[in-house]
Amino acid sequence: MLENRRLQPPGGTGILAWARHYRRAWLSGDLTAGLVVSVMIIPQSMAYAMLAGLPVQIGLYASLLPLIAYAIFGSSMNLSVGPVAVTGLMTATLLAPMATIGSDQYLQLAIWLALLSGVMLFVFGLLRLGFLANFLSHPVISGFISGAAILIVLSQLPHLLGVPRLPANPLQLLNDWQIINSVVLGFGLICLLLLLYARSLLSGHLKKLGFKQELATLLARLAPIVVVGLAMTVTVLGQLAERGVPVVGSLPLGLPSLYWVTPDLGNLRSLLLPAALISLVSFVESVSIAQSLARHKRQSIDANQELLGLGAANLGSGLTGGFAVCGGFSRSVVNVEAGANTPLAGIVAAVIIGLILVTIAPIFAHLPLVVLAVIILVAVTPLIDVASLRRAWRYDRAEGLTLFSTAAGVLLLGIEGGIVLGICLSIAAQLWRGSRPHVAVVGRVPGTQYFRNTKRHLVETAPHTLALRIDENIFFANTKAIEFSIQKALRDYPDTREVLLILSAVNHIDGTGLDMLSELTEGLLERDVHVHLAEVKGPLMDRLDSTDWLKQQVREVFPSTHIAFNTLGSLKRPGALPEQA
Amino acid sequence: MLENRRLQPPGGTGILAWARHYRRAWLSGDLTAGLVVSVMIIPQSMAYAMLAGLPVQIGLYASLLPLIAYAIFGSSMNLSVGPVAVTGLMTATLLAPMATIGSDQYLQLAIWLALLSGVMLFVFGLLRLGFLANFLSHPVISGFISGAAILIVLSQLPHLLGVPRLPANPLQLLNDWQIINSVVLGFGLICLLLLLYARSLLSGHLKKLGFKQELATLLARLAPIVVVGLAMTVTVLGQLAERGVPVVGSLPLGLPSLYWVTPDLGNLRSLLLPAALISLVSFVESVSIAQSLARHKRQSIDANQELLGLGAANLGSGLTGGFAVCGGFSRSVVNVEAGANTPLAGIVAAVIIGLILVTIAPIFAHLPLVVLAVIILVAVTPLIDVASLRRAWRYDRAEGLTLFSTAAGVLLLGIEGGIVLGICLSIAAQLWRGSRPHVAVVGRVPGTQYFRNTKRHLVETAPHTLALRIDENIFFANTKAIEFSIQKALRDYPDTREVLLILSAVNHIDGTGLDMLSELTEGLLERDVHVHLAEVKGPLMDRLDSTDWLKQQVREVFPSTHIAFNTLGSLKRPGALPEQA
Repeated sequence: MLENRRLQPPGGTGILAWARHYRRAWLSGDLTAGLVVSVMIIPQSMAYAMLAGLPVQIGLYASLLPLIAYAIFGSSMNLSVGPVAVTGLMTATLLAPMATIGSDQYLQLAIWLALLSGVMLFVFGLLRLGFLANFLSHPVISGFISGAAILIVLSQLPHLLGVPRLPANPLQLLNDWQIINSVVLGFGLICLLLLLYARSLLSGHLKKLGFKQELATLLARLAPIVVVGLAMTVTVLGQLAERGVPVVGSLPLGLPSLYWVTPDLGNLRSLLLPAALISLVSFVESVSIAQSLARHKRQSIDANQELLGLGAANLGSGLTGGFAVCGGFSRSVVNVEAGANTPLAGIVAAVIIGLILVTIAPIFAHLPLVVLAVIILVAVTPLIDVASLRRAWRYDRAEGLTLFSTAAGVLLLGIEGGIVLGICLSIAAQLWRGSRPHVAVVGRVPGTQYFRNTKRHLVETAPHTLALRIDENIFFANTKAIEFSIQKALRDYPDTREVLLILSAVNHIDGTGLDMLSELTEGLLERDVHVHLAEVKGPLMDRLDSTDWLKQQVREVFPSTHIAFNTLGSLKRPGALPEQA
Repeated sequence: MLENRRLQPPGGTGILAWARHYRRAWLSGDLTAGLVVSVMIIPQSMAYAMLAGLPVQIGLYASLLPLIAYAIFGSSMNLSVGPVAVTGLMTATLLAPMATIGSDQYLQLAIWLALLSGVMLFVFGLLRLGFLANFLSHPVISGFISGAAILIVLSQLPHLLGVPRLPANPLQLLNDWQIINSVVLGFGLICLLLLLYARSLLSGHLKKLGFKQELATLLARLAPIVVVGLAMTVTVLGQLAERGVPVVGSLPLGLPSLYWVTPDLGNLRSLLLPAALISLVSFVESVSIAQSLARHKRQSIDANQELLGLGAANLGSGLTGGFAVCGGFSRSVVNVEAGANTPLAGIVAAVIIGLILVTIAPIFAHLPLVVLAVIILVAVTPLIDVASLRRAWRYDRAEGLTLFSTAAGVLLLGIEGGIVLGICLSIAAQLWRGSRPHVAVVGRVPGTQYFRNTKRHLVETAPHTLALRIDENIFFANTKAIEFSIQKALRDYPDTREVLLILSAVNHIDGTGLDMLSELTEGLLERDVHVHLAEVKGPLMDRLDSTDWLKQQVREVFPSTHIAFNTLGSLKRPGALPEQA
């Protein structure tokens, strides 16, 4: 997309890109968006903290400094960062083997995970390593998200059923149904229905009541905070906490203090891989969200600047006792819909959440945990993306398989296992495609300068000349196949004296390919068959120029197949070869 | 290469390919080659058995049935199989953690390693999985061989110095030089000089004495057996064994009996990975040797038939108490030079070795081990291939690095580590190349139908038309880079109304690439810029045909850039876009 020159003066990055040129006209949009987003993310942040196995206030702490840090360093005008479902789940599953959920040790590890991930992201940004995320293909990302979403749903079922944990065999619940807390389940299902109604029908109903389309959509998005308010009122009035409905319990008043506990080096080392994984996922997720939003506004995203922004956000989170943060899709969409023009909206949201923390935060102590679980369920079920699987499978079996295996890997092998499996499969699929190259014998379409496959079109060929178009880069995985195809063509055209290799679709040749071509050419020369090239691209020619193959074995290099055909077709060479006689 | 029809009637494979059509004229060559090869490989087989940590007769046992089995199942007319240095080293290093060298347990593991590897190779042949070896690139193979050769040289130094093993820090030998056995070292150095003389100068001297070139070369190749004979004579006459020179010691008379010990299942499982590695290396080595020899004779090699041949050879070795075998380069070259026409030469060699085992084998008991060590040293030092490293580095830094890292990996991380590192690096290099695609803005060379890079040539462009040639398959690792290049071109040509993507060099587009193209096209459509395609290849078009991108977003698909240029250039469309105004 073209850059939006109003918003991104060349030369400025991060806050310099927007604050220096800030226009008063943008202010009302940024203020509204900040307010709307803060109201929306209060329940979300608490829910994702619960998902991560942390006290709910940690979610609110992770929604202060990170938003400000991102506003200073990030490159997206639209992205809203904070606790999200996938990083919450990753925090829980990556730390579970290292400490007991709920312990101080666990909280410290979560904070250090955010700090380490922040350092990694920031340093990767300084080193301009943003391109590394390109090695995650869409099927891997999509499969990972779907697998993680299923894990998240499973993790919330105990909260919904009011049991401490699911039995090893979940079907056993059908027998032991009496352990289910029916008050919790009933309460949860009512909230679930309310949220589902808000998501699917509410905005339509509001519109019918005379609200404008945009306002109706925005109001519907704020349903979770309304449900939270209603639920707390019912809980307090009905004394549900005393009747065995688990609630948040306590929530301290005030802002978090700056956090610093010198970590144990051994712990730090075992956090390295989890931090790298969470950084990778945060980065890929945030950049895809930022890019898709930027595209609509014709803005541009700088991947390395995003690394800096996310790194700063995670450092900010860790330093104020928060956990890993990342750009969130729904909160960013709401941010844009509410009119955000610049990251000032994020700063506004942070200030509002800060105000809530120093004033009314303790009232959330009355919130039943099942409400947070239901908010998570409603947020993540749309992430289970069967349509992508169907689409990938239809376009390319290998990609469908990669997507499915990544999701299954996340469920069965865990998050690291799933991602590694997915990356390996997508690389294998790519090699596999390249290992089965298409090699066509071509001839000239009569009266033109075009050359087409002799098997697909009626074309003319030149006597004793075999013109082969190799439709793939030549590299170790396909040298044997290409050699085989050329040999087969030579058997099909036994009176060949000139072999013309058309390299229009060959962008590079590796050493293994060069060795094959050289041995092939040597063998042909022994039989007095010459090899010529046509349509060699500039960068490839630069590389081949210094090789013995080109200098000593290849007879001629033609700029076009047309010229090669005319020249070779008019060659007069002695009769058939001895062994063909 | 064309098949040699004399030797390979279509429809026949393995022994059927040559025995049914055997000609009397081939017999003398096969008999001579069998004799020469057997004399040459007797010392070699014993030496490589020593290298593998096994009694020397195991080397001879591995030179009987394998040669006959390969003659029945293999596809090469020239390959000579048997114990080779690299598989000897692999046997020793892979089994060292599992049993003590010299123990019965160790011998049984070595035999089972051969059997397992034989089963794997044979089954892979039946499943026609020969193509899998294509994923080993030349730099990886070359680096592996060089690294293994260095390991072999190091492993033989104790034998040469007459010490039980090298000190942890080999430099310590300079201080503790008195532990070196000077008789052994002196004896070894004399043999070394004799062998080096035989390799470099002897054939020239023989030629001057009136021998024909070919005979002189062959006689020089037999130098090891002469050195062995001389060394044994000196040892017996000088009573060197009594004076502390380690000798072979004992060698049983007679053929090996059929071997079968039911293995421990746990052991068998831990042999799986070693067997897979040794199978991979044997197969790749044997096929490269067989192919390079076949090329000169214009014969062909069937990789899957080779798997069967090597599998049968290893099964034959294991069943007669031998260890892993593979095609050997020097022995195969001697085989061809001595006139071998068919695998009958191998059968002849096996018969001669069998005769030696039942008659004079015990005399080898007097052979000093240092002579075997020296034979190994002379055989493997040429495998340390610095020229390949230099050549790879000059052609492509990434390939040079892969080769070097594989060799260093074999030395520092062990054989498995080195091979895995090499495979990962060669795949990474391939992805890296593909991730930096060349995208060119092209224009028409005046008066022709050719299109060239506007930056390299003086070409004409059509108004409001941006013609881009994408010089790479579009896949996850390069979608961002390609999108970036297209965006940059759009900024450079701000009055673009028609974007023409020329896909002559794009052989496939993966799902990630398709998503990018679709989002890009959508963004351009919002600005009333149309996307067109030209020169889409048949297989790619088949795949794109069913996508929404092609059906709904792409405006037109042109058969050639020339036609596209003429059509788009003559389009009349309203003026510039609002934001360009």
